[in-house]
This record gives sequence, structure tokens and C-alpha cells, in this order.
Amino acid sequence: MASPMRTAGASTTRNVPVIAAVIGDPGGIGPEVCVKACLSERVSSACRPLLVGNADIVRRTLSALGLKSEVRVIQHPSEIGRRTDGIAVLDPGEYDISAHRLGMPTAAAGHAVVHWIRLAQRLGEDGAIDGLVLGPVDSQSLKLDGEVVDIDALQPQGTYMFRVSGSLRAVPLTEHIPLRAVPATVKKDAVLALIELVSVHLKRWGIPAPRIGVAALNPHAMFEEDLQEIKPAVDAARAAGLDVHGPISPDSVFRMAQEGAYDTVVTMYHDQGQIALKTAAFEGACTIYLGLRYVMLNVPHGTAFDIAPTYTAQSASMASAFATAAALAGRHGFL
Amino acid sequence: MASPMRTAGASTTRNVPVIAAVIGDPGGIGPEVCVKACLSERVSSACRPLLVGNADIVRRTLSALGLKSEVRVIQHPSEIGRRTDGIAVLDPGEYDISAHRLGMPTAAAGHAVVHWIRLAQRLGEDGAIDGLVLGPVDSQSLKLDGEVVDIDALQPQGTYMFRVSGSLRAVPLTEHIPLRAVPATVKKDAVLALIELVSVHLKRWGIPAPRIGVAALNPHAMFEEDLQEIKPAVDAARAAGLDVHGPISPDSVFRMAQEGAYDTVVTMYHDQGQIALKTAAFEGACTIYLGLRYVMLNVPHGTAFDIAPTYTAQSASMASAFATAAALAGRHGFL
Repeated sequence: MASPMRTAGASTTRNVPVIAAVIGDPGGIGPEVCVKACLSERVSSACRPLLVGNADIVRRTLSALGLKSEVRVIQHPSEIGRRTDGIAVLDPGEYDISAHRLGMPTAAAGHAVVHWIRLAQRLGEDGAIDGLVLGPVDSQSLKLDGEVVDIDALQPQGTYMFRVSGSLRAVPLTEHIPLRAVPATVKKDAVLALIELVSVHLKRWGIPAPRIGVAALNPHAMFEEDLQEIKPAVDAARAAGLDVHGPISPDSVFRMAQEGAYDTVVTMYHDQGQIALKTAAFEGACTIYLGLRYVMLNVPHGTAFDIAPTYTAQSASMASAFATAAALAGRHGFL
Repeated sequence: MASPMRTAGASTTRNVPVIAAVIGDPGGIGPEVCVKACLSERVSSACRPLLVGNADIVRRTLSALGLKSEVRVIQHPSEIGRRTDGIAVLDPGEYDISAHRLGMPTAAAGHAVVHWIRLAQRLGEDGAIDGLVLGPVDSQSLKLDGEVVDIDALQPQGTYMFRVSGSLRAVPLTEHIPLRAVPATVKKDAVLALIELVSVHLKRWGIPAPRIGVAALNPHAMFEEDLQEIKPAVDAARAAGLDVHGPISPDSVFRMAQEGAYDTVVTMYHDQGQIALKTAAFEGACTIYLGLRYVMLNVPHGTAFDIAPTYTAQSASMASAFATAAALAGRHGFL
């Protein structure tokens, strides 16, 4: 019979989210930062981590780092159970390790990483994992393999990129399209749908009454799209009971968000938010894919092929990504 | 006969620039911050200040602040001579002081400030002053007067707005136009002309070999205008011997400038630079009008009608504007 103490404990493993990480391109620093993060107190206290990738690469990485830890190869996240010792690795066997080259792009790496990401995304859709961190992928490896044209092709359909940098959070209507194509995408229905999507997710992540700022398209919010598309969308969202404000002058809204006025800024194009976030450049930046039933996010760095062979990579961003995924999956809000 | 000491001294008044400030809307905090700045050690040690505006307003402001200082009314900047005591005021007598209202917009204020600014600009063009600081103007006062439609109408033709915030400096090709009109303005000749203008002025202001970063128009600098208009402009500028780089991804170039890579960023539209500068938001921000023979700049705050009657305005931005104008006019570079 369970004691009252055990029942009351908030830290029963059932409530500790399973956060998977795809190790990224095996030739880059992804495996190293994943291993370091998994073994850190910050990550192991926040979630039950799981790596998706090649188990031999994980073992080699541990060895190169002079770390001793059990590698438990599993076939499905349900095998993790309540154990948090060692490093759990889900290895679908898609990597041709004879083609492994540390510090450079290879077709084998490109092939494997695409497979690992797709597998991990299916586990997320199935509810087998609570969160997923994507380790760094290299566009050259993807090209050498040729299965996908670029990294954008791995973004699940219908999702938006929700970017976080310190207290600044922004999500744009569109990503890598020419600026001249932007104004035509700024339509009331699209803006309203994104506002609603952001609101739903912020609530799900543990922010009960999200405050959303909506950037104007044009300088000082004083032109056509601001008044005829964005304002009606904001008005409709407010009529539906959401705490939404805008259109706000693009050169003011991020400073206001930074000072605490908004939990998230909805932006009208890629650079609008990215200029603010990357210029302010806080620690712990990451990108979350908005519109999924699980929390999927990217670490904000690349494969760093040049330093991969030195095994001196910093794992703070990867640990932060695990912790963010765990906090949001557990409805605790942003860190 | 001048002694060797006097001849060798760097601080002979002949070399101390005359920096004028238009006191701005008399109903706002402009007169107060001008008076406080003029009497500060920071301003009086950097230049020979001169106020353009109504002498009675200056006297009332001194009295309200409980400050005792001589007000010397002059007709032309040449009368300043080497004196730096008291406050020199050039008063062309255009303000109907019977209509003066502290803390609100009036037609009389709008009328006077337009006249003062035009007079001060002529003094700059004539070489009678070395620099000019524009105190805060109110758009409502301008409307009540009706002589100009808005503040933009007071910008000298052919000038660009060179904005400074800490170590970040940016100047856009265009100002308050809709985003949909921006791509058509991004043409090789226009970009090249702005690069050259920036380079000439940075040299004149005391930066002998300016390093200029040029922002792309589109995300990651990978679309039509980036490659067919901006890149050829940068290449032409480099061929002419300028230290110019770009097109650089808009979400990276400001961080690079902030870290010291560029003295100034040439941007493709208003919000591109303004989002970066206002989100980073350093002290001592100001806007310089690029393309004049003298240094003209704006303080980065408004008339603050609400606090004007309390005489509690901070004058640090105005003092910083005087000091920046003096440093650039004296070819000492940015503070």
C-alpha cells in the first residue's frame, strides 16, 4: 500500500515529462551537447530525457568526454519507465556508422537525421513523448543526402515558429519569403487565426490569461494593412475575450514586451521579430513549433563542425531547451 | 602679441564650436531642458551654446527653476564671441507670449517653432553656427498653426535620418512609407548614393576610415533585391575604396554592429533599424540629419506637456545632444 507521503509527492515520475532530443547531425556538436545536457542536474531534475539517434555515437561521445554513464538502448519511450539513471537512447538503426566523419557534413548524417526527426515527430503526435528538442542539423549534409531540399522541409505543416529570447517572444505570420510578398499575406483571417493559435498554446503551456501584442505592418501603425486588416483581427479577438492589443508600432512593441506588457508579440514578417530578438540577444534562446499537440523546439545554434572534434562545446543552450520543453509540457510557463 | 601658451592651447574659443538649440514648443519641456543643459558643465565645457527662441520664456524658465543666470539677447551668432557665461538667446520675436500656455499645444507655439527652426537652419547653412539641436516639437501645435502639415515637413530636402542609440547607428533609405512601397525604392544607385553620403559624413565627423554594414532587404539576404540591387551597390562602393560590407542578413547586422564590426548600418526601411535601436534602447539616443554642411540633430523625446508645468524634466538627453553635436562638429567622432 502506498504511503500518504508517496501519494502526496509532486515528483512522482508519472508527472515528470519525457523529453526526447534528436542528437542532430552526428558529425557536429549535437551528440556532445545532448550527452552533457542529459547528465546535468538541470535536465535530470526537470524531465526524463531520451535521445533519438545512434547509440554507438552516444557511447563514443561519452568516451571522448571521459564520462562514464550507462547507455540504455530502448525501442519505445514507454520503456523508460521511472528510471532516470544513465542515458536512454532510442536507436532506429538508420545511421551507416562506417560513413561517420566527425567535423564535416556527410550524406549518411543527412539521411539519418531526417529519419530520426520524422520518427521523433511521430512519437510526439502519438503522445509517447511530451516534448522534443531538435539538435543541430546541417544543410550541407541534407543536400548530400538529397531526401529533403532544406531544413524548412522538416517543419511540420501548418506550424508557426514561436521564438524565445529571454523575456522576448515573437511569432511571425510568415517565414522566409521576400519582403515584397509580405503585405499580401497580412489578412484579417490569417492574423486572427494566429492570435488564437498563440493564445491556445500559451494557456496550454501554463499562462492562464495570455497578454498578446500585435505588431503593425507599417511604420507607426498608420497605413492600409494596419487599419484594414490587423485592427479588425485584434478587435475580433478582443470581442472573443482575448487580452490582445494592437496594431502597435513595430518599433515600440518589442520594447513594451521586454518591459513586461505582453507575453508574446505576433509579428507580420520574419525579420520584424528576429531583428528585435537577435539584437537584444538574451541567453536561453530557442524556437518552438506552434500548432502541435506536443512541445517541439530547436536549439539556437548550428552543428559547429569546426569545434566538434575538440569536444569543447557549451551545452547550456541544449540544457535550456530540455528545461523549457519540460516546463511547457508540464504547464509551468516559460522559465 | 599672443603668448605661446595661448597659441598652443587647444581650447581657444575659436575652436570651440557654437551649438545652437531651438527651444522647441514653448508649452513643453523644451525650454526647461535647454536651460538646464546650457548651464551644465557637460555642455559649457564642450561648446558655446546658443538658444534660439523667446527670451522671456527663457527668463521665466530660469525663474521657475530658481536659477540665476544672465540672459544675453543677441541678433546673430557672431555676437557670442568668446563668452561662455550666462545664456545667449537669439530671439527673432516671433512668439505671441500673450497666447503662451504651459502644458498644452497652441497655434502660437506652432507658429513660432516653425519660424525658429527655419531661422536656425539658415544660420547652419550660412556657417554661422557649427551645430543645431532641435528641441521637442508638438504635432498638435503645428496643426493648430497650419503652416506645415507635420514634423516631417521640417526635414531639410535631400537629408536622411541618421539615428544613434549607444553604439548602434543606422540610417534608412526611406522613412514613413508603407512597407509595400519599400521594395521599389531599393535600387542600386540609391543604395550606393546613401553609402557614399554616410561615408563622407562619418569622415567629416572624425571617423577616418568608416566601416559600414549594409542590411539586406529580405530574410537572410537571399532574394532578388539583395542580390540584384544591394550587392552591386556594395561592390561598387568597395571598388571605390570604401570599407563597406553586405548585404548582411537583417537579423544579424545590428548585433554585429553592436559588437563593434560596423560604425554604421545602412538599412533598407524605417522599421528595420528602428526595431533594433529602440529594442536595444541605450542612453543618449538622437537623430542626426545626414546631408547638411552643419550637424543638425533631434533630441529623442517629446514635449511632455503633462510634466512641463512641474519643472521636473530630465535634461540628460538634451545635454547629450549638445555634446554629440559639439563632438561631431569638432571632428572628434561619436561620444
